[in-house]
Amino acid sequence: MTLVATTSAVWSGDEIRSADREYVIHSWSKQSGPNAKLISGAKGSWFWDSEGKRYLDFQSQLVNMNLGHQHPRLVAAIKEQADRLCYVGPGFAESSRAKLAAKLAQITPGDLTMSFFTTGGAAGNENAVRLARHVTGRQKIVARYRSYHGATAGAMSLTGDPRRWAAEPAVPGVVRMFDPYTYRCPAGHPDPCPVCTGGPHLEEILQYENPYEVAAVILEPVTGTNGLIYPGEGYLQSIRDVCDKYGILLIFDEVMAGFGRTGELFACDHWGVVPDILVTAKGLNSGYVPLGAVTVSASISDWLRNNKFWGGLTYAGHPLACASGLASLEIMEDEGVVANARLQGERLDAGLRRLEQTHSSIGEIRGRGLFYGLELVVDRRSRRPLTPFNAVGDAALPMSRLVKAAMERGLFLSANNSIVRLTPPLVITADEIDHALGILDDVLTIADSYYEG
Amino acid sequence: MTLVATTSAVWSGDEIRSADREYVIHSWSKQSGPNAKLISGAKGSWFWDSEGKRYLDFQSQLVNMNLGHQHPRLVAAIKEQADRLCYVGPGFAESSRAKLAAKLAQITPGDLTMSFFTTGGAAGNENAVRLARHVTGRQKIVARYRSYHGATAGAMSLTGDPRRWAAEPAVPGVVRMFDPYTYRCPAGHPDPCPVCTGGPHLEEILQYENPYEVAAVILEPVTGTNGLIYPGEGYLQSIRDVCDKYGILLIFDEVMAGFGRTGELFACDHWGVVPDILVTAKGLNSGYVPLGAVTVSASISDWLRNNKFWGGLTYAGHPLACASGLASLEIMEDEGVVANARLQGERLDAGLRRLEQTHSSIGEIRGRGLFYGLELVVDRRSRRPLTPFNAVGDAALPMSRLVKAAMERGLFLSANNSIVRLTPPLVITADEIDHALGILDDVLTIADSYYEG
Repeated sequence: MTLVATTSAVWSGDEIRSADREYVIHSWSKQSGPNAKLISGAKGSWFWDSEGKRYLDFQSQLVNMNLGHQHPRLVAAIKEQADRLCYVGPGFAESSRAKLAAKLAQITPGDLTMSFFTTGGAAGNENAVRLARHVTGRQKIVARYRSYHGATAGAMSLTGDPRRWAAEPAVPGVVRMFDPYTYRCPAGHPDPCPVCTGGPHLEEILQYENPYEVAAVILEPVTGTNGLIYPGEGYLQSIRDVCDKYGILLIFDEVMAGFGRTGELFACDHWGVVPDILVTAKGLNSGYVPLGAVTVSASISDWLRNNKFWGGLTYAGHPLACASGLASLEIMEDEGVVANARLQGERLDAGLRRLEQTHSSIGEIRGRGLFYGLELVVDRRSRRPLTPFNAVGDAALPMSRLVKAAMERGLFLSANNSIVRLTPPLVITADEIDHALGILDDVLTIADSYYEG
Repeated sequence: MTLVATTSAVWSGDEIRSADREYVIHSWSKQSGPNAKLISGAKGSWFWDSEGKRYLDFQSQLVNMNLGHQHPRLVAAIKEQADRLCYVGPGFAESSRAKLAAKLAQITPGDLTMSFFTTGGAAGNENAVRLARHVTGRQKIVARYRSYHGATAGAMSLTGDPRRWAAEPAVPGVVRMFDPYTYRCPAGHPDPCPVCTGGPHLEEILQYENPYEVAAVILEPVTGTNGLIYPGEGYLQSIRDVCDKYGILLIFDEVMAGFGRTGELFACDHWGVVPDILVTAKGLNSGYVPLGAVTVSASISDWLRNNKFWGGLTYAGHPLACASGLASLEIMEDEGVVANARLQGERLDAGLRRLEQTHSSIGEIRGRGLFYGLELVVDRRSRRPLTPFNAVGDAALPMSRLVKAAMERGLFLSANNSIVRLTPPLVITADEIDHALGILDDVLTIADSYYEG
């Protein structure tokens, strides 16, 4: 490469793609795959590549762009803070940081009060768990199998997702419980079962682990990456009750589900259950600047006034990031974004129920707001999944063909195991929902072609 | 708090400070201390508080603002990218990301080629070590005692700094070696000694650990937070040689020392030793947007074309962050920033040597470029430190009094144990260096007052 890389240098698409292939390490992949698509612009629920092909973003990228791409008010807020003060160290007070913390204290449920700001969800979960250990003086953590909590060592140790395998041996002290995956009850029980109702399952584990050695239970109130699994009524409250019984802290990872994604500001608001620590990122500022938050209860806030907080990072409370978070929350309120998520979610739900009539590969539709999963099967009676758990190569082909076909038709989807995830920006319109449903109707025939029932 | 937090709401200084105290969790501290100083603006080597008091930033905040505060070209580049494309997922190719990776391949030493972009140094070190484990198929990592590699569980496990104690039990498999701290040889040897020359010390440890079980040695070529410890001539090469002998990868953490800080673009350039993996952050873009990078050798790049990279984060290769990194490197070249670091470093060095004549508390001056440490003692012969290792409360008073007195005089300094760190922006002027030296001359009398020699 003899090209000079400067901000003003205009490179052709081929030159950018060539530099990308030669010099950029992409996540979770071999670096010898096909050229990554070159994205040249984006707006609202759409982005487009260097050939001018447009894609409806039904992933919100990595489920972070709740306000969609290039929201003008959010961009303006970033530019305004950039002009004012890009950065000052975490030891100082700064206007955007203080305002965002005050705003979170106001809008988060229950008595959640003080916030520690990180650069994303992984560091958020790391700090939540470390804090829980210090507050309780206990070491063990209960986490669920179908979870994803981030890719740093501590967050990965909490994670159940098989990507954990590549990071083991892990941090010691993590104990696993099952998710309330009623469609495929992990204990093989009929629905309802003691595992899927939460409390009894947790309490059985605690009796074997010593409940008074457990610092915290961490879970995604709605399982994200690993299946869009919604808890039944009473599940979260039963977990809350067992935690309270033994003095165990409850940590909710709402990195993916928070900030309107499920049609409520926070997923836990659906069930009125308040955690001791809430971890957020992604939708907090739609990821325009890396940002995460750890928001803690009044009693942990009190503890922190008398005990040292053993965490920190250079970019904790980053002013540019906090300014974008504050603007994002303001836009959500002013523009009725959560209400739109609910409204368009109902339209999406109705459309999916229609598709279910004609596409036998749809085993289950799970969702609220704009946080949906389609569980695909080859047989509705046996519920055998379209692809086996953690399939790679040929075994994963049915799903990868479907996702690729959608992309060719201009619909950006994601999938994990046998579950298609439908998580568009919360600013999406009715027409865009209909457009996506049309393409889904088309590409689901690929899944149907594997049907054996 | 009944105030409404919006981007446009004008809060008084008292209101911001009150929200900060009530709602923001600050790093590494009890949340009941005195009000944090409210910073309202910054420019170049200076920042100022809400009372209009100005401070010469002799820390570069957390040793990240190599280009100083609010550099106009850097701010402009952020605003330009914000208008164009704040974010697109890590799976795509994007112009600023590809250009920054190409630029790093060009300016990093040796055959360092591909880069993985994170949101900071901790995640960088986490990914470097995980990758080293996968590439070698080995598990153990050798790290040094006077290191700081970040606050996530994996990075903290590598860290020697006592902040690690609050995060243990750690990830298994980390083995410790000493730093070349010749002023206080950790093995109690006279200088030069087998420990402080590196290779022999490492090889002794390896014989007890099994060198063929060790994936990597990770070290800061110049120890940052924990003492501004510079290796002697030949040290890094001897470590490199031992690594090569046993097929162990060498990881340099240049999060603090990189990008001109020591008067060369990278600290390892002083000694012509090239690591297999280079981790950077901070000075990479002066922290205007959270960003880190893991840059790997050609042979690891080749390995990555045929093997899966088991890492990823939502904000990997964040376009806004990459644009700021690219602009930052361009500014460094265009404005001769590294040459200025060297020039002003010589002025700082000469000034410190003068102070050493009159301030008996200065035990040793260590530095190059603008990366200096003053080791303070109560007796030059015994070298007894001004404050004991990891002192808190009254035992730490001599240092905290000095730092506080400097702040009162408008000089923002940092200190760790008995070492004052002098790490101003690399764009500092001769007059500003002289201004700082004048204040240092004044406040060092506090340290002198404890002198017992």
